[in-house]
Amino acid sequence: MMNKSLLVCLFIVIFCISSVAQPTLQWEKAYPGVWKASVGKPEKLTLLSAAEIHPNIPALEKLPVTDFPLSKADISYTIIDHKVYLRFPLTREEKLYGLGLNFQTVNQRGRILNLHVDHFGGVDNGRNHAPVPFYVSSNGYGVLIDAARYITVYAGTAVRRDTKNPPELMDRNTNKKWKAQPYSDAVEILVPADGVTMYVFAGPTPMQAVQRYNLMNGGGYIPPKWGLGFTQRVPTLYTQEDILLEVQQFKEHQFPLDFIGVEPGWQSMAYPCTFEWDSTRFPQPKKFIDTLSAMGIKANLWLNPYVSPKGSLYTKVKNYAGSHTVWNGLVPDLTLKKVREAYTQHFAKNHLDLGVSGYKIDETDGFDNWVWPDVATFPSGTSAEQMRQTFGLMMQQMSASWFKDRNQRTYGLTRASNAGASYLPYVIYNDYYNHRDFITALINSSFIGILWTPEVRASQNAEEWVRRIQTVCFSPMAMLNAWADGTKPWSFPEVETAVRDVAQLRMQLLPYLYTTFAQYHFEGKPPFRAMNLVDGFGFQPADVNGNLSSTNNPYAIATKKDCKDQYMVGDNILVAPFFAGEKSRKVFLPQGKWYDFYTGDFVGENQIIEIPSTLEKIPLFVKDGGIIPLTTVHNQAPKPGEQLPLELRVYGKSTGTFTLYDDDGTTFNYEKGNYSLNRFNVVINAKGALEGNITNIKPGPYNYSTVQWRFMTK
Amino acid sequence: MMNKSLLVCLFIVIFCISSVAQPTLQWEKAYPGVWKASVGKPEKLTLLSAAEIHPNIPALEKLPVTDFPLSKADISYTIIDHKVYLRFPLTREEKLYGLGLNFQTVNQRGRILNLHVDHFGGVDNGRNHAPVPFYVSSNGYGVLIDAARYITVYAGTAVRRDTKNPPELMDRNTNKKWKAQPYSDAVEILVPADGVTMYVFAGPTPMQAVQRYNLMNGGGYIPPKWGLGFTQRVPTLYTQEDILLEVQQFKEHQFPLDFIGVEPGWQSMAYPCTFEWDSTRFPQPKKFIDTLSAMGIKANLWLNPYVSPKGSLYTKVKNYAGSHTVWNGLVPDLTLKKVREAYTQHFAKNHLDLGVSGYKIDETDGFDNWVWPDVATFPSGTSAEQMRQTFGLMMQQMSASWFKDRNQRTYGLTRASNAGASYLPYVIYNDYYNHRDFITALINSSFIGILWTPEVRASQNAEEWVRRIQTVCFSPMAMLNAWADGTKPWSFPEVETAVRDVAQLRMQLLPYLYTTFAQYHFEGKPPFRAMNLVDGFGFQPADVNGNLSSTNNPYAIATKKDCKDQYMVGDNILVAPFFAGEKSRKVFLPQGKWYDFYTGDFVGENQIIEIPSTLEKIPLFVKDGGIIPLTTVHNQAPKPGEQLPLELRVYGKSTGTFTLYDDDGTTFNYEKGNYSLNRFNVVINAKGALEGNITNIKPGPYNYSTVQWRFMTK
Repeated sequence: MMNKSLLVCLFIVIFCISSVAQPTLQWEKAYPGVWKASVGKPEKLTLLSAAEIHPNIPALEKLPVTDFPLSKADISYTIIDHKVYLRFPLTREEKLYGLGLNFQTVNQRGRILNLHVDHFGGVDNGRNHAPVPFYVSSNGYGVLIDAARYITVYAGTAVRRDTKNPPELMDRNTNKKWKAQPYSDAVEILVPADGVTMYVFAGPTPMQAVQRYNLMNGGGYIPPKWGLGFTQRVPTLYTQEDILLEVQQFKEHQFPLDFIGVEPGWQSMAYPCTFEWDSTRFPQPKKFIDTLSAMGIKANLWLNPYVSPKGSLYTKVKNYAGSHTVWNGLVPDLTLKKVREAYTQHFAKNHLDLGVSGYKIDETDGFDNWVWPDVATFPSGTSAEQMRQTFGLMMQQMSASWFKDRNQRTYGLTRASNAGASYLPYVIYNDYYNHRDFITALINSSFIGILWTPEVRASQNAEEWVRRIQTVCFSPMAMLNAWADGTKPWSFPEVETAVRDVAQLRMQLLPYLYTTFAQYHFEGKPPFRAMNLVDGFGFQPADVNGNLSSTNNPYAIATKKDCKDQYMVGDNILVAPFFAGEKSRKVFLPQGKWYDFYTGDFVGENQIIEIPSTLEKIPLFVKDGGIIPLTTVHNQAPKPGEQLPLELRVYGKSTGTFTLYDDDGTTFNYEKGNYSLNRFNVVINAKGALEGNITNIKPGPYNYSTVQWRFMTK
Repeated sequence: MMNKSLLVCLFIVIFCISSVAQPTLQWEKAYPGVWKASVGKPEKLTLLSAAEIHPNIPALEKLPVTDFPLSKADISYTIIDHKVYLRFPLTREEKLYGLGLNFQTVNQRGRILNLHVDHFGGVDNGRNHAPVPFYVSSNGYGVLIDAARYITVYAGTAVRRDTKNPPELMDRNTNKKWKAQPYSDAVEILVPADGVTMYVFAGPTPMQAVQRYNLMNGGGYIPPKWGLGFTQRVPTLYTQEDILLEVQQFKEHQFPLDFIGVEPGWQSMAYPCTFEWDSTRFPQPKKFIDTLSAMGIKANLWLNPYVSPKGSLYTKVKNYAGSHTVWNGLVPDLTLKKVREAYTQHFAKNHLDLGVSGYKIDETDGFDNWVWPDVATFPSGTSAEQMRQTFGLMMQQMSASWFKDRNQRTYGLTRASNAGASYLPYVIYNDYYNHRDFITALINSSFIGILWTPEVRASQNAEEWVRRIQTVCFSPMAMLNAWADGTKPWSFPEVETAVRDVAQLRMQLLPYLYTTFAQYHFEGKPPFRAMNLVDGFGFQPADVNGNLSSTNNPYAIATKKDCKDQYMVGDNILVAPFFAGEKSRKVFLPQGKWYDFYTGDFVGENQIIEIPSTLEKIPLFVKDGGIIPLTTVHNQAPKPGEQLPLELRVYGKSTGTFTLYDDDGTTFNYEKGNYSLNRFNVVINAKGALEGNITNIKPGPYNYSTVQWRFMTK
């Protein structure tokens, strides 16, 4: 008995010592403004290794020099039982953004997330299509945990007994201020691995922390120009003739169309896949793609990565696949060179050589059940968990490299992504369909280096239809996904004009959008941005006290107010979309004067305004001094060398500047400097009036024939 | 380069060998009809060790002798990277029940569950109040994984490449029979630990597998008689006077009441707790409890286990608590004897010595955020994960032992439980409030050795109110929980009579209910039972084909049909409750003739009937030959020695038998044989008519004064 007590005492002593003397991390400079630390034995396969990033050091060097943004002494770790426990400090009013493609919440402080590649199941719990273990703080720094594991993040929820900043003790019986969630001064993180590497990114602003993150990943992707045009995905069993007819219909309806999404029926077998053309529906695939090409249309092919025994890839992959099948298909071990070689050859021969422009890579997220189980094993020794966290990344990286090797830009869709993806040519989509949540996801995508499309499928009514089309036209990919129902943009005749108008407005805005993506690439600034990344955005709403309800709110939890229904496209355009059923909405205008995009009228500054809805237009606002370059209406993006006129809309009464980026629109030659930069300046002339002038900063491919200034604000 | 390829080849060879030559398990007989196997290094703290079970071997011996119910060769394991992978076989039509307190689904085949103690978050994903890693198969056997870890169960979802029973290969493009979920011939399980012990339970029926499971756990708990009476939980800040007034009101309304639930305000501080009386609201706790006792009422005290610095327990526990606080309270390391001693002394002095009858142990489930994080450490070295999976069990076990040591039965509430809990005196409840799902949980509780109450709180209208009260009266604890809103049973005057009627019907049925709980204890049969545990229940509905919808059902998944809205109370009563809004409902009647409980009329056999709703009554049906013992209306359960008259209702036209159990109703003397058994027999007499007689099988405490037979079926 004595021995047992002694043993317990000993345990307690050891415990106390270990909890006091937690080791601190050794931070080394990894890149300008980016520090790195490793603990334990980090694993070989990580998120960044799977993504095969190539940091853009020169771009990182252009950001302001800063010191390590946190107190190093306040970052600690422990390794217990093959798990790494990490602790990062938090100040009292700090907010945390990122931590995956969340659909319903923006500020993640106070949440517990188990980051796990999965479909979004209706609750922001860490399971989603891009559970990126990166957070950016409102205090202007970022943290990335580079582990291909199911990481649990306690984002300001855990309270240590020995903390220097304990929450106030309150009695729930009598103290009305009692809170279900006491103040926590740390982000605590559990990485179920023997070691891990992590990164800290300096700001000093939240945007700059995000920029550093994206630039470390190689900078954001610049889609080919056609990728920013409109795309329609056709019903599953469409034949090549059906598709050519569909393209014809777009022409007849004068509706923009740049690429067609070809759904599973193109394959001789799908679920699992052969990745080979079906000879009945697509007897002449080369001719089909050539015909499309002659009409100015690219083809994007759907696939899921699971290999059918009916296809010729099967025998090449079968010794290099996982222990379990998905829909009877092999799960290729993408960490193996043999697998990559087999895929590369098969896809080149069957698709790329024929002119296929890109892929929609489906079913890499899991949707809970439709993926290999965590008990699966892989020939490389990669665990099922690591494979789950990186598979979507590896499919993106591998397929992107095929196009890169041909000096040809692609633009496609993925259902799973993770850290390191900024430079990859893929946009995430899913089956969920809440319009508001789709916009919140678009906002959250900006924190974590991924792109998201709030794709349009069927709608309940014309109002919902037009509202959804309006927002998808202000997203990374303007897509109508009609695989299951065959919907067309003109499916609701009463709003056909409104739908065409906004699609054509997107086409007009291509010069602006394209420059915005170039900014993503060269500066790391996300093209579609949370307001929280915008300087001068002062939205700091108090949480709304919760009402006690034994069923709905037994802890009387306050409702968190997030700004999650408006966002920025590039530096100058604020988008405040309407959702079906809304008669009016509030818009939070950051500091500085703001103007209506359509009229040029002043609308407010650093305030909340209420605007009435009009069915025809998506509300857009432009910053004082903002210059928006537009081209004329064209239903396809400009082809290489095609010259279009440019209109420069100027908003407000201040001077301003906008640097237009351009290049050939299809190759990676811009990496070798083959691009142009033209700076548009608005200055005050001798008469005291605004006047525009243009400086050619960098000569190069430039696709605009004439330039016309238009001063919008009277 | 050659070396790298060689290495890959070597990996593949090793992989192939290892996947072929998976080791089989060594099964040893643990108890009659129960086999045990261990792999790797099982952990010391398991679910069963935390529950401190005492298997009832003599009762197990009474079940039929059987062989190991599975093919041992088809059970395999692997240990990789500190994780155990297990594989159990499945036949094609097999259904799987259990795997936690699921709220929406009964058959778990085809689901993936990560078993994790938590509040129920609206989806059956393994996170719930009792994620018991035990499943019972429709083929008549059970499997328990005894690990205090977050276990992932692939319940017939994972498909191995090397399986002997591969699913049929289909093309989704062209084959209408393509299923999103191909056939899987195994349950695969991931236990994140270096080793694990598991148990297999023979049937031959599903009920017998459940019986063996419960008997291994010591048999089910027999509540004190007062525990089966009605209980009301009062608003949080009620004073001792308020409570005495409330009791008086129950008398005035002639409403049953056996025990009062005293909510947080009894303590000097709650959230975290002092476990000490508040001197302003409860100046004389002993007198308060004595006064209640004189009125025949017991007191049950709410608590959460987190220790407030304001109470005297704090200093005793502070060196034996976890690294993190919950609501500023210490998390006691319940694996340590010092902590248990401190709690035991504190609770004896402050509550048990005063006559407190039991506890409501709140906040042990987590509700996601309100529990220690997985990065917490505990002085005993127990991990946060193990603590999470066992904390509710340990709180139950410890507090139960206090009462057991006094030879006094208790009956209380818990929010977290796990394997091994059958013998523990606690009923699970939660904050969720979907009435249908509450009944599905009641059904599922029968597979996993736990009790669940579909407690009644506020309701939208009188119909919902009466419907909820009707079902809670046919559950393990007839509770109205008014902590937040102060609702009374008579809150909807228009249904006061209907509400009183069903509460009084429960009181009349106490002899039947009590015997049913004795059956739980002595035979292991759950008192409230899924139809799937009933012999002759032939409900085998085909799944309903799903309609393709890109948003709501992109895989056209079939809808699984479960029988999840009717259940058995004991051997004889089938409950088919109505839910608010229903005008009629279907009832699945098992084989054998069935009769209306109220009228004795024949209603059907082995068929689906449709019954119209009446607001006043909950539909109850009795099996042919069923005998239901009732007593007269009393608003409190019989006290020790109190003699009540008995009415024996006989249903149908067959002979039958019912063995009534009785004992003193408050102590554990029944364990020493101090109970009575009276067998009621219905036989056909010389005239060819039914006739009743009684055999006293075992003399002992028997609380019924007179016996009257009533043949219900004309």
